Amino acid sequence: MKKVIVGLLGCGNIGSGVVKLIAQMREDIRRHYQLEIEVRRALVRSTEKKRIPEVPASILTNDPDQVLNDPDISVVLEFLGGEQPAADYMARALRAGKSVVTANKMALALHWPELQRAAEESGSGFYYEASVGGAMPIIRMLQSSLQANHITRLSAIINGTTNYLLTRMTDEGMDYQTVLADAQRLGLAEPDPAADVEGEDASYKLSILSSLAFHAHIPVSDIQREGMTHISQVDIKCAGDMGYVIKLVASASREEDVVDAFVSPVLVPKIHPLASVKGAFNAVYLHGHAFDDMMIYGRGAGSAPTASAIVSDLICAAQESNAASSTFEVVEGLSESVRMAQDRTCAFYLRLQVKDNPGVLAHVASCLSGQKVSVRALQQPQGSGDGAQITILTHPAAESSIRKAVSAFDAELVTVMNVLRVEE
Amino acid sequence: MKKVIVGLLGCGNIGSGVVKLIAQMREDIRRHYQLEIEVRRALVRSTEKKRIPEVPASILTNDPDQVLNDPDISVVLEFLGGEQPAADYMARALRAGKSVVTANKMALALHWPELQRAAEESGSGFYYEASVGGAMPIIRMLQSSLQANHITRLSAIINGTTNYLLTRMTDEGMDYQTVLADAQRLGLAEPDPAADVEGEDASYKLSILSSLAFHAHIPVSDIQREGMTHISQVDIKCAGDMGYVIKLVASASREEDVVDAFVSPVLVPKIHPLASVKGAFNAVYLHGHAFDDMMIYGRGAGSAPTASAIVSDLICAAQESNAASSTFEVVEGLSESVRMAQDRTCAFYLRLQVKDNPGVLAHVASCLSGQKVSVRALQQPQGSGDGAQITILTHPAAESSIRKAVSAFDAELVTVMNVLRVEE
Repeated sequence: MKKVIVGLLGCGNIGSGVVKLIAQMREDIRRHYQLEIEVRRALVRSTEKKRIPEVPASILTNDPDQVLNDPDISVVLEFLGGEQPAADYMARALRAGKSVVTANKMALALHWPELQRAAEESGSGFYYEASVGGAMPIIRMLQSSLQANHITRLSAIINGTTNYLLTRMTDEGMDYQTVLADAQRLGLAEPDPAADVEGEDASYKLSILSSLAFHAHIPVSDIQREGMTHISQVDIKCAGDMGYVIKLVASASREEDVVDAFVSPVLVPKIHPLASVKGAFNAVYLHGHAFDDMMIYGRGAGSAPTASAIVSDLICAAQESNAASSTFEVVEGLSESVRMAQDRTCAFYLRLQVKDNPGVLAHVASCLSGQKVSVRALQQPQGSGDGAQITILTHPAAESSIRKAVSAFDAELVTVMNVLRVEE
Repeated sequence: MKKVIVGLLGCGNIGSGVVKLIAQMREDIRRHYQLEIEVRRALVRSTEKKRIPEVPASILTNDPDQVLNDPDISVVLEFLGGEQPAADYMARALRAGKSVVTANKMALALHWPELQRAAEESGSGFYYEASVGGAMPIIRMLQSSLQANHITRLSAIINGTTNYLLTRMTDEGMDYQTVLADAQRLGLAEPDPAADVEGEDASYKLSILSSLAFHAHIPVSDIQREGMTHISQVDIKCAGDMGYVIKLVASASREEDVVDAFVSPVLVPKIHPLASVKGAFNAVYLHGHAFDDMMIYGRGAGSAPTASAIVSDLICAAQESNAASSTFEVVEGLSESVRMAQDRTCAFYLRLQVKDNPGVLAHVASCLSGQKVSVRALQQPQGSGDGAQITILTHPAAESSIRKAVSAFDAELVTVMNVLRVEE
């Protein structure tokens, strides 16, 4: 029986869930993995606050050094959240030769090179399965199951809040503000929802996934980002009529040494496996040259699924199997030369409000054809008060051409209500 | 740069695909994993037959000892297929301290205790990701990502041939024999399709998955097995009308120390993620107490996806990360005491051909209620020539009660056309 002594940085909702799961699985972990886990110390803000019975007052401390400098502690679990001091503490722990397990996508994505180097140089294990997709083992898949592939594309629904909002908007015909207020009441959206609905959270996760998939660092700042607050019931209905659902998709693709990565609302065909991912569920769809298409689907958040991933990482760390650091040579990976795409080609959805004027369709068509954008489908539902509405699906076209075509529309005749990407 | 010398047992379609993928990924494997892979020897039936350029005649041999006794060969890839001599060769290789990588579900499922013990006792790595679900990393998920869970259930579509047949029967309204003949012409079904359509192949795979999920050996002989050859267009249409699709499902559940495992046709609700798994795709749906619901979906067969899993295992074996053997204590696992369920409770679908006789529905209802089976839905489409047809969905009931109720039907009045399980 091997004993592993663990220190916690933070012990809120997630941390407590982890301690509870360790207690619950103690017997199984002994029997199946010959491991004895002791939670020795937990850094908290208040040592006075009453905790769950599995977190006795005797292990609480205000002093990070009690965790970071204790030579007996070999694995540090980080639950502080946010960028700092989490990133600094993790780097310190790694440099001190401790394994680190974290769910902190923000600190991880923003300090990727520094943290990966610290792990590699000290030979410490660095595990972050819980940082993306809750219990779904997408990190381990990329690190130790799909190595024999050139991964060319990943498309993911990795923000549960926005998927919950869009699912209810789609299924119940509610508008964004109403669903948001309801989700906030239910605790499914933050009082300030910006990090979710503006796609920030998804961009941190996409930075992590694409860096692993492409063996190169894809910084958050290189990810194009567009939120979902401008998606209206009209868009959802128009997309539905044409056979699509609107999802907030985090997408990254690589062709030779060019990488494209964005988070944005996307029209997904109803028959695509991602279209059936509803509510707070997450999914990652991957394409590789040998495995072809693959998808993993599961609960992307929540205390228990997150704890599932963290305790799994802890067991791996305790076994020193170091799947994480041994199968991804980071410093090497960081130096692999890729560049970000300046433009991208895909199909687009355009929703236009137009003057009820016989020449307007010809004008729109000519602006599009002027940029060699060809139309695949066009719908003109009955006009609303302000004139007519046109929705257009294009054939694949360069995004720059779409932008140019749109900017050529006569503002007297055409108001652009929305331009969205379409998944094929 | 670490060098790993590999021996092949068999070099047909899959083996050649693996050698090709190793060659294709050589540079990437060097760069990302600091590994140099040399294929030293390949056991084949004919050393004369012309092979792909990546398999030079100089490495071919008829003599298994040239692979099994070569001390330089540290990893053996087994592609012989079938039970023997594959199982014996693998056991020999493991006992000689070589890591073994295999896609051979039959040899693995039928010799599970012997092979696992050989690996454990010699400390050799034993990898079999490709044995279930092609490139989908379901084995690694169970071994090293979902450890902190009591897995209570898995439902899987793990036979591509039958899923292809049922998909076309459903989508195109074709009958079984026509689709089968077409699949055989296309090379998607064997000339003798029994191993697939009778559920044998799926039962080998289910034995492997459930043994890992439940940390106990679930032998193939303990798996209830029912094929799909008795599924007719009528069943598919009746199920469709009631909101279900028929899939050949491999299912295993554990409650305390009781395990139930079966392969059979199942009515799956159209909104269940498994329902959308079409054609030759595979998927495994899991439930665990912490991670809740999860699904992985991908190509279950084919030379390239299988090679993807094998080369991934080979990289893990070469790195000696031994995820497989280190995270699953087999001898311990084998001794965990479980017993197989004698009965099971689920909803059932019954299709009955009945005499056009006013008393018959009352008779059927009374036989069911006599066994405390309650009816959730009942449909009587227009009668065919021989009388009327009744389809019934029951509420969850013990399978033994259903069998008793059915055997109480008056054979003069009722012919039982089909009894199928229903997933909820």
